[in-house]
Amino acid sequence: MEKRSITRATLGRLPSYLEYLRSGESPTVSAGSIAHALGYGEVLVRRDLNLVCSEGRPKIGYPRGALIADLETALNVSKNTPAIIVGTGKLGRALMNYRGFRQYGYCIAAGFDADPNKQNAESEDCPVYPMELLPDFCRQHGISIGIITVPGPAAQAVCDLMTENGITAIWNFAPCRLRIPKNVILRQENLALSLAHLVHCASESNMISEVCDDA
Amino acid sequence: MEKRSITRATLGRLPSYLEYLRSGESPTVSAGSIAHALGYGEVLVRRDLNLVCSEGRPKIGYPRGALIADLETALNVSKNTPAIIVGTGKLGRALMNYRGFRQYGYCIAAGFDADPNKQNAESEDCPVYPMELLPDFCRQHGISIGIITVPGPAAQAVCDLMTENGITAIWNFAPCRLRIPKNVILRQENLALSLAHLVHCASESNMISEVCDDA
Repeated sequence: MEKRSITRATLGRLPSYLEYLRSGESPTVSAGSIAHALGYGEVLVRRDLNLVCSEGRPKIGYPRGALIADLETALNVSKNTPAIIVGTGKLGRALMNYRGFRQYGYCIAAGFDADPNKQNAESEDCPVYPMELLPDFCRQHGISIGIITVPGPAAQAVCDLMTENGITAIWNFAPCRLRIPKNVILRQENLALSLAHLVHCASESNMISEVCDDA
Repeated sequence: MEKRSITRATLGRLPSYLEYLRSGESPTVSAGSIAHALGYGEVLVRRDLNLVCSEGRPKIGYPRGALIADLETALNVSKNTPAIIVGTGKLGRALMNYRGFRQYGYCIAAGFDADPNKQNAESEDCPVYPMELLPDFCRQHGISIGIITVPGPAAQAVCDLMTENGITAIWNFAPCRLRIPKNVILRQENLALSLAHLVHCASESNMISEVCDDA
């Protein structure tokens, strides 16, 4: 099957499809029944599923086992792809302990910090190493994903170190704009902006409304 | 001046305009000089600024003081609007300590937690109270913004408690869909989805690319 582009909105719904499919036992399942159970429109469900699997058969639906396998592939579930975090302050540690990443097939393999007091190679949950070990760790574990949770002034140097060591996807929580090489993808997270935008929307509207990146 | 709708992308650039304007001293400043200093297009800067202030005068520009005041108003800077957080686990505590909120005129006034071990009314940074105190606290401090960082199964009850006590803007980090009254605005945050989408984009593209809510 040719790989087609999956939007963020679709990607956001895939785990709920997977969870629903895993909870049942019938050999086939229709888009209508999924839509009804999850409160989505049937056309939407059909469109989402057709991005990750072959089309269902009219009046029969999708074969449950194959659809689960296709969703697991699309969601990267079995791979448990490792990522690293640089900067293990409160936000970095919160992300290191965030269990939701597993749902999408990711794990935080290690943290790195310049502060010896934060380093803890023996941690059961997630080890924290000194910065000098980052290049070897990335090479040995084939790391391609890096999360930056250092203060703003330190972020560019961390970004450079990551991209020099094979990382091609960077999620930056530091409040600064980063320069990245051409082959790297950057997501800039701004928690304060998210809050400000939410409140701005609330002050403008009295209607039911969901402020969401998926829009 | 009539209030016009400000997009998330514009809202994201306003703090950089404010910072730049505060760093200078000349009585007027042109959109071109702001654009040049910050690396934005001049048309974009002009459009952004016209959403928050009166138009600049041709060949003269914007009066610096008035523009700073208008940006401060748009960004809510002087108000220091209080928000509360329910759920003071690692993520909740990281948000309680996140300094970036101040840039947009928000502060976390208090945390609430059902776990007595996490309650600390004497904390210098941000007190953590038992859940029973939430209604009184919200009333006394006029709280309209609530952040939910409890586990999924507890989130709906927290959401209900918030909306029953005057909160109209909710930022939910719990991995679940919440039912909200009509007059409430909800932002659903999904950190795992953000990571998954970043990596999905990285695997599809080798071009310069920035994955961003602002798009």
